[in-house]
Amino acid sequence: MSSTSAPGPEAQHEFLTRNVEEVLPAGALLERLRAAAGERRPLRVKQGFDPTAPDIHLGHTVGLRKLREFQDLGHQVVLIVGDATARVGDPSGRNRTRPQLSAHEIEAHAATYLDQFFRVLEQSPAPPRLPVEVRHNLDWFARMGFFDVMRLLGTVTVSQMLERDDFSRRFQAEQALGLHEMVYPLMQGWDSVEIRADVEIGGTDQKFNLVMGRDLQRLNGQPPQAVLTMPLIAGLDGEQKMSKSYGNAIGVSEPPAEMFGKVMSAPDHLIGVWWRYVTAADAAELAQVERTLADRAANPMVLKKKLAGRIVALYHGEAEAERARERFETQFSRREIPTDLEQWPAEGAEMGIKDLLVRSGLARSGSEAWRAVDQGAVRIDQVKVTDRNHRQGLEKPFVLQLGRRMVRVVPAGDVGHRSRP
Amino acid sequence: MSSTSAPGPEAQHEFLTRNVEEVLPAGALLERLRAAAGERRPLRVKQGFDPTAPDIHLGHTVGLRKLREFQDLGHQVVLIVGDATARVGDPSGRNRTRPQLSAHEIEAHAATYLDQFFRVLEQSPAPPRLPVEVRHNLDWFARMGFFDVMRLLGTVTVSQMLERDDFSRRFQAEQALGLHEMVYPLMQGWDSVEIRADVEIGGTDQKFNLVMGRDLQRLNGQPPQAVLTMPLIAGLDGEQKMSKSYGNAIGVSEPPAEMFGKVMSAPDHLIGVWWRYVTAADAAELAQVERTLADRAANPMVLKKKLAGRIVALYHGEAEAERARERFETQFSRREIPTDLEQWPAEGAEMGIKDLLVRSGLARSGSEAWRAVDQGAVRIDQVKVTDRNHRQGLEKPFVLQLGRRMVRVVPAGDVGHRSRP
Repeated sequence: MSSTSAPGPEAQHEFLTRNVEEVLPAGALLERLRAAAGERRPLRVKQGFDPTAPDIHLGHTVGLRKLREFQDLGHQVVLIVGDATARVGDPSGRNRTRPQLSAHEIEAHAATYLDQFFRVLEQSPAPPRLPVEVRHNLDWFARMGFFDVMRLLGTVTVSQMLERDDFSRRFQAEQALGLHEMVYPLMQGWDSVEIRADVEIGGTDQKFNLVMGRDLQRLNGQPPQAVLTMPLIAGLDGEQKMSKSYGNAIGVSEPPAEMFGKVMSAPDHLIGVWWRYVTAADAAELAQVERTLADRAANPMVLKKKLAGRIVALYHGEAEAERARERFETQFSRREIPTDLEQWPAEGAEMGIKDLLVRSGLARSGSEAWRAVDQGAVRIDQVKVTDRNHRQGLEKPFVLQLGRRMVRVVPAGDVGHRSRP
Repeated sequence: MSSTSAPGPEAQHEFLTRNVEEVLPAGALLERLRAAAGERRPLRVKQGFDPTAPDIHLGHTVGLRKLREFQDLGHQVVLIVGDATARVGDPSGRNRTRPQLSAHEIEAHAATYLDQFFRVLEQSPAPPRLPVEVRHNLDWFARMGFFDVMRLLGTVTVSQMLERDDFSRRFQAEQALGLHEMVYPLMQGWDSVEIRADVEIGGTDQKFNLVMGRDLQRLNGQPPQAVLTMPLIAGLDGEQKMSKSYGNAIGVSEPPAEMFGKVMSAPDHLIGVWWRYVTAADAAELAQVERTLADRAANPMVLKKKLAGRIVALYHGEAEAERARERFETQFSRREIPTDLEQWPAEGAEMGIKDLLVRSGLARSGSEAWRAVDQGAVRIDQVKVTDRNHRQGLEKPFVLQLGRRMVRVVPAGDVGHRSRP
């Protein structure tokens, strides 16, 4: 769908709700699309990010890609850099009160955020697409005085606040729930009033805060925003949502090789999910991915490598993606055997397994060698040797392993490459 | 105890804890008195008042009289005019969120408050007593920005706040408890930090807020204040605490006659309590009052008149008190019979009750007169006449009543004072 074809509200709605977890309330997005079309203006589509860590990761890009779709359709994307909200700290999903960040840390993080946002969104696209509007919510919160804050607090009751899942859970578990934490949803909601948002996009864990924006807009005489929640993708552990603080994130600024390797280390069940939410793949391509995943004959490693290449290409280009794939294959097809392995020159045409282990120095005695074979601790070129009678040909080099110790066995004539005496 | 005799901390403590409901924590006042004596400085003794109504009433004076005792001992009284707290509204003891007052209303009320405070405290006493220090808490709250408020909120948890009796009650009853209301105790506590209070005095219903001051002082590196709670005296209904909004209050600015009359209308069981808490009576005098109250032969009306005279004298002087007493007796010994009552000259030595009623014009017929007698609606000089055979002597004037209609019956020779033909 291109930005110049100007599809009608219904067609836009169908496209924009793809991959969305929930539209709140149902029909609100269509209503806003129709209202904006009627007023011949773009929608103002908001997402906020608190610069609480120096980098954004693939989890953040789920929402950013949805924003990009709005941008491609000619709507006005408004990014809120939550430099004020970050100082208060969103307690969502945390069991403990998050430490408040210093103004300096937040400023430093905020600077790196914008660069990273523009790896997904277009900062200054060609018309009719619109440049991204970037707002810092410190601009309005820093101007608020005591009674402005009181007025904001006065718009909700304690019970309403404790309806928020995580607040109620922590309150009932008698975990410390700081009074200041209750202000966070109101701040996020107030951002919507300040920028007159038509639509706000956020993770499913932000539902309460997103809906708060509707309430505050209504109280301030604005039509309430449509809320689009996006799924939270799991991180590298395959279970918890991707988050810097869980150590399971892939940052969009990570070098190609690390990014590729991290994708490859993710559990297979994430392949389909990640493909859907972080690659910008279209419907046809996703259907193809689903078919492959359903095919028991297909090797998921192949699809995962494609996924890793695809993600690296998004942030570093095709060439870097190809290079990362090659490096990965070189390194990992040899299953992590170092290239500078110690060499041992073996004489003769073949040798029994016990003599190989003892003479190469990997086993200190014949009985240790037998025990290792019996326990499955011996491998030749990665393949386990469990037969005491195994005899190995010596015409080509191979890697001999006993547990974690290993040596490269070479024909006696190749001894010149031996790295240590 | 005079201000010049400089009694030691222990003697001061014994005197100052008289009539106090609770010292929190136990021993804290003595500790502060000793610390101040060691540093050769006066204690800073705080009480706050929110100018939420135009007048202060006798209930407020319970604390003010305790402050006066501190002033008389040479300590520094600090009155906080809660022009900021009043805007937020203390939810104590209310079932419903109190409406926020306008800045204009608060300013107007605050102006009248100070005058009234100085009917109990001495604004500029002779040394060594110290002038009262008056502070407006808007001075510091108006300077607070968003993050100052967040830091203040961050010092407590939601659970701590809901430990406050009335919050917890309202929360559990699912009554609206505005998030901003939770800030009130923190504001009151912050006042103590701002003025470096050694002691804070408040009503028993303020206990939670008073102790909050201790917490915030500790967090800000100050020795925590001693808290003195004073009892809440009941108002004219004899049950609910005295409060302008319950309509059971006696304002310290009310005219002498109204003040006297209101005290006289209070139920007898308040005589001892009011004498103790609002008259500044000393121990010997209170003992005398208690003895009189315990004496079944004594008429409580006599003691109540003394109390009313005493209270009027405190705010209007002895002469006005005497005048109010006289006016009261004139008016009420005649039980509210107007002095300009219509006169009817009756001829003869005596007359039957029916004839009196018909001839004076109070009854339109004999049957109406009988019915009125039977129903107990007829009185002569306040005394019910229920006997159809009653005959009344006519040598002296008397008041004849049928229901709410009344006439002064006079011997026919006195007719000259008749007000209407």
